[in-house]
Amino acid sequence: MQLEKYKIDQHNEVFSAAHKRKFTALTADLPHAETIVKKLADFQVAIPSWALGTGGTRFARFAGGGEPRSLEEKIEDIGLLHQLNRSSGAISLHIPWDIPKNGAVIKALAAQHGIRFDAMNSNTFQDQPGQKLSYKFGSMQHVDKAVRRQAVEHNLEVIEHGIALGSQSLTVWLSDGSCFPGQLNFRKAFQNTLESLQEVYAALPASWKMFVEYKAFEPNFYSTTVGDWGQSLLYATKLGPKAYTLVDLGHHLPNANIEQIVALLLMEGKLGGFHFNDSKYGDDDLTVGSIKPYQLFLIFNELVEGMDARGMDHTTDLGWMIDASHNVKDPLEDLLQSVEAILITYAQALLVDRAALQSAQQNNDVVRAQEILQNAFRTDVRPLVAEARLRTGGALDPIQLFRDQQVREQLVKQRGLKTIATGL
Amino acid sequence: MQLEKYKIDQHNEVFSAAHKRKFTALTADLPHAETIVKKLADFQVAIPSWALGTGGTRFARFAGGGEPRSLEEKIEDIGLLHQLNRSSGAISLHIPWDIPKNGAVIKALAAQHGIRFDAMNSNTFQDQPGQKLSYKFGSMQHVDKAVRRQAVEHNLEVIEHGIALGSQSLTVWLSDGSCFPGQLNFRKAFQNTLESLQEVYAALPASWKMFVEYKAFEPNFYSTTVGDWGQSLLYATKLGPKAYTLVDLGHHLPNANIEQIVALLLMEGKLGGFHFNDSKYGDDDLTVGSIKPYQLFLIFNELVEGMDARGMDHTTDLGWMIDASHNVKDPLEDLLQSVEAILITYAQALLVDRAALQSAQQNNDVVRAQEILQNAFRTDVRPLVAEARLRTGGALDPIQLFRDQQVREQLVKQRGLKTIATGL
Amino acid sequence: MQLEKYKIDQHNEVFSAAHKRKFTALTADLPHAETIVKKLADFQVAIPSWALGTGGTRFARFAGGGEPRSLEEKIEDIGLLHQLNRSSGAISLHIPWDIPKNGAVIKALAAQHGIRFDAMNSNTFQDQPGQKLSYKFGSMQHVDKAVRRQAVEHNLEVIEHGIALGSQSLTVWLSDGSCFPGQLNFRKAFQNTLESLQEVYAALPASWKMFVEYKAFEPNFYSTTVGDWGQSLLYATKLGPKAYTLVDLGHHLPNANIEQIVALLLMEGKLGGFHFNDSKYGDDDLTVGSIKPYQLFLIFNELVEGMDARGMDHTTDLGWMIDASHNVKDPLEDLLQSVEAILITYAQALLVDRAALQSAQQNNDVVRAQEILQNAFRTDVRPLVAEARLRTGGALDPIQLFRDQQVREQLVKQRGLKTIATGL
Amino acid sequence: MQLEKYKIDQHNEVFSAAHKRKFTALTADLPHAETIVKKLADFQVAIPSWALGTGGTRFARFAGGGEPRSLEEKIEDIGLLHQLNRSSGAISLHIPWDIPKNGAVIKALAAQHGIRFDAMNSNTFQDQPGQKLSYKFGSMQHVDKAVRRQAVEHNLEVIEHGIALGSQSLTVWLSDGSCFPGQLNFRKAFQNTLESLQEVYAALPASWKMFVEYKAFEPNFYSTTVGDWGQSLLYATKLGPKAYTLVDLGHHLPNANIEQIVALLLMEGKLGGFHFNDSKYGDDDLTVGSIKPYQLFLIFNELVEGMDARGMDHTTDLGWMIDASHNVKDPLEDLLQSVEAILITYAQALLVDRAALQSAQQNNDVVRAQEILQNAFRTDVRPLVAEARLRTGGALDPIQLFRDQQVREQLVKQRGLKTIATGL
Repeated sequence: MQLEKYKIDQHNEVFSAAHKRKFTALTADLPHAETIVKKLADFQVAIPSWALGTGGTRFARFAGGGEPRSLEEKIEDIGLLHQLNRSSGAISLHIPWDIPKNGAVIKALAAQHGIRFDAMNSNTFQDQPGQKLSYKFGSMQHVDKAVRRQAVEHNLEVIEHGIALGSQSLTVWLSDGSCFPGQLNFRKAFQNTLESLQEVYAALPASWKMFVEYKAFEPNFYSTTVGDWGQSLLYATKLGPKAYTLVDLGHHLPNANIEQIVALLLMEGKLGGFHFNDSKYGDDDLTVGSIKPYQLFLIFNELVEGMDARGMDHTTDLGWMIDASHNVKDPLEDLLQSVEAILITYAQALLVDRAALQSAQQNNDVVRAQEILQNAFRTDVRPLVAEARLRTGGALDPIQLFRDQQVREQLVKQRGLKTIATGL
Repeated sequence: MQLEKYKIDQHNEVFSAAHKRKFTALTADLPHAETIVKKLADFQVAIPSWALGTGGTRFARFAGGGEPRSLEEKIEDIGLLHQLNRSSGAISLHIPWDIPKNGAVIKALAAQHGIRFDAMNSNTFQDQPGQKLSYKFGSMQHVDKAVRRQAVEHNLEVIEHGIALGSQSLTVWLSDGSCFPGQLNFRKAFQNTLESLQEVYAALPASWKMFVEYKAFEPNFYSTTVGDWGQSLLYATKLGPKAYTLVDLGHHLPNANIEQIVALLLMEGKLGGFHFNDSKYGDDDLTVGSIKPYQLFLIFNELVEGMDARGMDHTTDLGWMIDASHNVKDPLEDLLQSVEAILITYAQALLVDRAALQSAQQNNDVVRAQEILQNAFRTDVRPLVAEARLRTGGALDPIQLFRDQQVREQLVKQRGLKTIATGL
Repeated sequence: MQLEKYKIDQHNEVFSAAHKRKFTALTADLPHAETIVKKLADFQVAIPSWALGTGGTRFARFAGGGEPRSLEEKIEDIGLLHQLNRSSGAISLHIPWDIPKNGAVIKALAAQHGIRFDAMNSNTFQDQPGQKLSYKFGSMQHVDKAVRRQAVEHNLEVIEHGIALGSQSLTVWLSDGSCFPGQLNFRKAFQNTLESLQEVYAALPASWKMFVEYKAFEPNFYSTTVGDWGQSLLYATKLGPKAYTLVDLGHHLPNANIEQIVALLLMEGKLGGFHFNDSKYGDDDLTVGSIKPYQLFLIFNELVEGMDARGMDHTTDLGWMIDASHNVKDPLEDLLQSVEAILITYAQALLVDRAALQSAQQNNDVVRAQEILQNAFRTDVRPLVAEARLRTGGALDPIQLFRDQQVREQLVKQRGLKTIATGL
Repeated sequence: MQLEKYKIDQHNEVFSAAHKRKFTALTADLPHAETIVKKLADFQVAIPSWALGTGGTRFARFAGGGEPRSLEEKIEDIGLLHQLNRSSGAISLHIPWDIPKNGAVIKALAAQHGIRFDAMNSNTFQDQPGQKLSYKFGSMQHVDKAVRRQAVEHNLEVIEHGIALGSQSLTVWLSDGSCFPGQLNFRKAFQNTLESLQEVYAALPASWKMFVEYKAFEPNFYSTTVGDWGQSLLYATKLGPKAYTLVDLGHHLPNANIEQIVALLLMEGKLGGFHFNDSKYGDDDLTVGSIKPYQLFLIFNELVEGMDARGMDHTTDLGWMIDASHNVKDPLEDLLQSVEAILITYAQALLVDRAALQSAQQNNDVVRAQEILQNAFRTDVRPLVAEARLRTGGALDPIQLFRDQQVREQLVKQRGLKTIATGL
């Protein structure tokens, strides 16, 4: 479903006076408010096609209702999100969960919703019905060359689908690893994986990027063959200039300093993109900003600083994607919260007084450096984010409008209560 | 299937000379070898009914073949394990995955295999087909009394099944908790849970125990309502003398000192039992002893010391159960490895020179205390464990015999390649 | 040194127009702003006497200058902090680092600065010159009754000092534990410790509280004898109604849900007080709110909710103390930042719409519950905190005034560059 | 002090019958026992000069007695260890704690004890008396070029000392990092550090290696500038072929898979050496093998496999050093335990049936792979280690002899009770 424009306008009218007052009060002290609003308006976060249905754990999945039953309905859902917040203008597809029957038709449908195709995601962590060889013992790392070849060919197919849709990048997340000491020869697993990645890399169109995602653990519980940023960087470096590291916020060991990793990858010119989510224990895939919002701010602080230092374009030079699971929330509401959290944090990072921070650092004025960061973080930037939405035609309060319009109830009516979207 | 006794005898003959040599060499220095062998022979570890099939993660499950299709076949599998190692003479049932149609018949079948029924396990972490109310937001903690009542009634049913089978205890593991800050009022969740547990407790037969299992995280990723030993002890204390804490080795935060927890629970008279497995990151449910065998030894060291100090019977006064998942191994082989690891570790703990240790502790002789523990741990006690098996009619090398007899191949032939046992 | 009042007034004049504007804008939407400002004005955080000098690690200590050379100078420093922020009106003394030669004189000096004596802290984790028996192998847990007795007597002395100063509580932090498996009998260590604590408890004046602090690790690296909240609660329960658990934010295993612990301790009526700081890895003793401000908010959210539910007084019914180390910052500036962070977070917690939250929880509206908490946290409450300071005679920007008045430079001039305050 | 040879002989006579019996029983089944004993006899572990005195934490240090008062006495202590176990034939010096007044004399003294000089260690994590510039805000990362230069020059001096003593390598451990967000520009800190390291690297003699040690946290509690293996490898790669990564077992985040890191560094030809110790929580610096002996085995398993795959010499191609702290044990006894644990583990790794393991891996026989590793680990290899000691003139039970000869008592008599060796 789509919302008629007048409904958004009516909603905004209700909230605009209060918004205007807050926006005015806030921007009175912000010389660069206009620039920030402009950057916020430009910033787009890709929605993963698998995140439109209810997620689950190995223990259970408590499906909600009205979940999209097809790629078309997934695009429709993202179209709706984008209508509401104007910041979800991209979709990240997962193959084979979302194989487009006709690329051109799907591309046109997405375009109608103002949506482009972000990174394509391959899947060699599950066996698909009818699949010849099993990934039980890994895919690109597998001791059997035939399994590796199958995994490579799957990735080549994914690239083909991506080309048809206008995507420009491939995210390779491998669950490859081992559950027990002795199961793998780490070195050979690395080399097999590298060889497989090289074969995929060779098939990459000139303009494409390959994102090598790392993860500390799960579903393998002893070792992971692309286990941390150091390993991912090693692969990316050996692969070549089109290969980059992708950072998923939930893929680290406890207490990792992710913002430092981000800064160093940017320094090396090897940061490719992000999977946003939040977590307390492992790859919990919670709503962005729901657990450690200050960590997210520190990461964005490094992103803004590092990208500016390299003259990178904030909106296009890195891949921004959400990768979360919605076990107890309405997936669309959850995604609205995640995108909002990202924009708020991005705005806070843009607020940081760079010159003052640099000067404090140069003088080892640790107290002052902290004050500068905290000043940005403690500022209530929500009026900036809302203003960006208002100017681009979105809703001042997307979740409120979503609820007022009873979107979920209508989706249930249309699609049924027992639909289950593909995904985890 | 069952093995004919002569096959075990033939197998033992092949290995007996080497075994005898090692056993003799080892026991030359061990005055109490006979006592230890006797204790090992008596020690029984319950096999969970859900662990006889291939496990999986939220990402995938790569089923093996020949998995048991019914409770009867599960009992048969455990019977086979018990034939091989003579230490698996108990089964821990999970309801509703293993509802016996006729308790008396099932009990008799188990008895034929020398198997008794250990703790019964209830399940309020999943919705079952046709279930009236959902556990999406918890069961015993639920804000809705009707959901809590449903969860209580399920547990009452489980007790009924257990009575019919001769079980003496109920394990309550609750996945109740929350995924996001604000979702729960922690205090009310505790009190609702306590109230529900009290209703179950009230229905417990006089001779029964209730085990309150705790877990730090998963499947809820922000809070768990029975989250650590402190909380479990609080519930158990408020419930009364039949309520105990159950320790699952994988249910702790990183770096937790589990052996100290065990010692203190024993001190309080509130340790009820164990779920054995091993893990590196979270509730990885790996084979017992495969990752941190020394930690397991330190735990058994406390168990032996603490049980002896209270005059407890090693074999009957605590519940010993395995709770593991077999994602990449044959489940039966995995269980043989787990039971073997438990017996080895128990033997090592029995080897500890208690008087010398106490004296070293009394003198703050830290070097000596370490030497005493390491001496026990570094001793190759496998001949003791093998001897216990030999004397009770088991196989000297259970996995070898399992493979030599092509058990899995036969099970596949009988049951098919695509069977999937109930469980996770 | 003390600041003349007119300097504070001059400072406030400079910043008052901007402050007034922000305060007005913020409170336009806050019906309860006045109540919150009042509560903020009443809230007092005790400064530990050992935190007025530069801290260090086992590797090095890089002393600053102008550190207080005596208890009198420490009180003077806190007096200055209190002048600046009007929220530091208490001192938490550490014995033997700060033994008052004359209690009455010291008490009068503190009173001049508007400072009262919060919890007294004993020290049995170090050997003092001339001490008869060593704490190398623990104090209250020690296998030697004479050592335990020495530790008890030290605590009795600390109580005596506290009575003379008008303190009402004793904080017992024990570093007791072990570095190696086997070193301790956990049970005996617990019982020895309990017995020692009971002797101290028996000497507690009727109006006093005893805080039993727990810590997961450091300086003992295998076990700690009061290692987590569960153990502390066990001691406190066995000791009696005057014994409480004290929570130090840095004393947990990785990923612990501290806010849930706080809620449960409040539920049990056994939460005694707090040691505020922040940390990323262990007991890092960093500035409050510098690493995980949202966690701090969630803790305060539980505190406000739980105290209100029990009808507790926010300012007097729990002990609020800072326990941080200042390795790279000016200690006084660091403390100003910590108190500010506490007040900001307290204000955010007071902003939470309790009725709406309760209703969201009752409806399992997880999205809404999150929005309610985030709304409070994302609000820029600094004008409320500043207003509370303004009304009580403090400075609008304490650190700015501290720097403008060159306080540190003057302290260096008075006390010298090479002074080192007692502490860690 | 040194032990007269006859005392060792007498000691060995007492224990030789029992030893012989065990050795014979064990080697009956080990075809390669002789090769293993030979390798064990060749293996030498360097003792750090700072580990001969009692260690401490930031809370306290409980000094023992008879600690070495000079570099000469430290060498004497290591000479004694080497006499006892014949595996401690190297010393790793720390500058400025152990500046030799006369290199040639010290070298000759060491040679008398059969001790060579392993890696030299520089110290830019503390300020030394009279030092011009402070390392409070880092050394090689420092924003001030003059501080960086001072740190570089210190390292050049250390190299000079090392040349005089015949050392062949320099270990650079930097505590550089930050305690608070904002304190550092991560990128600039990296580049400053790289530039500084390059200046040191340029001064390295042709035959020397530089070891770049990494550490996750402590004494900096927010970020460390050489924080993990990925960063260390980045530095080492940019520096050149003489630069390597050094792995200290206690310098990782919780749950890190260190053996995989070791395997990958070996694969890259960039593993330089080891600092052995053990830990449960952080850089606890406990006795090697006292907490996680199986992890140590898995690391040695990778070392043996990886070194053999590259044709590396086990004894000379990597630097083997202990880096532990002895807070509650006699330092010499603790070191004896550590070296023993290393040799036991090395022996176990040598026992692994490589061909069978490779075949199991090739067949994804995870059960078998685990059995192969566990078989090696569960074997009691102490007779092999003892035999190696016996053949090279050491004692069958070094700690027993150390105690029987009342070595510590004599050292106290010679050196006094209150001596404190330089170190942490």
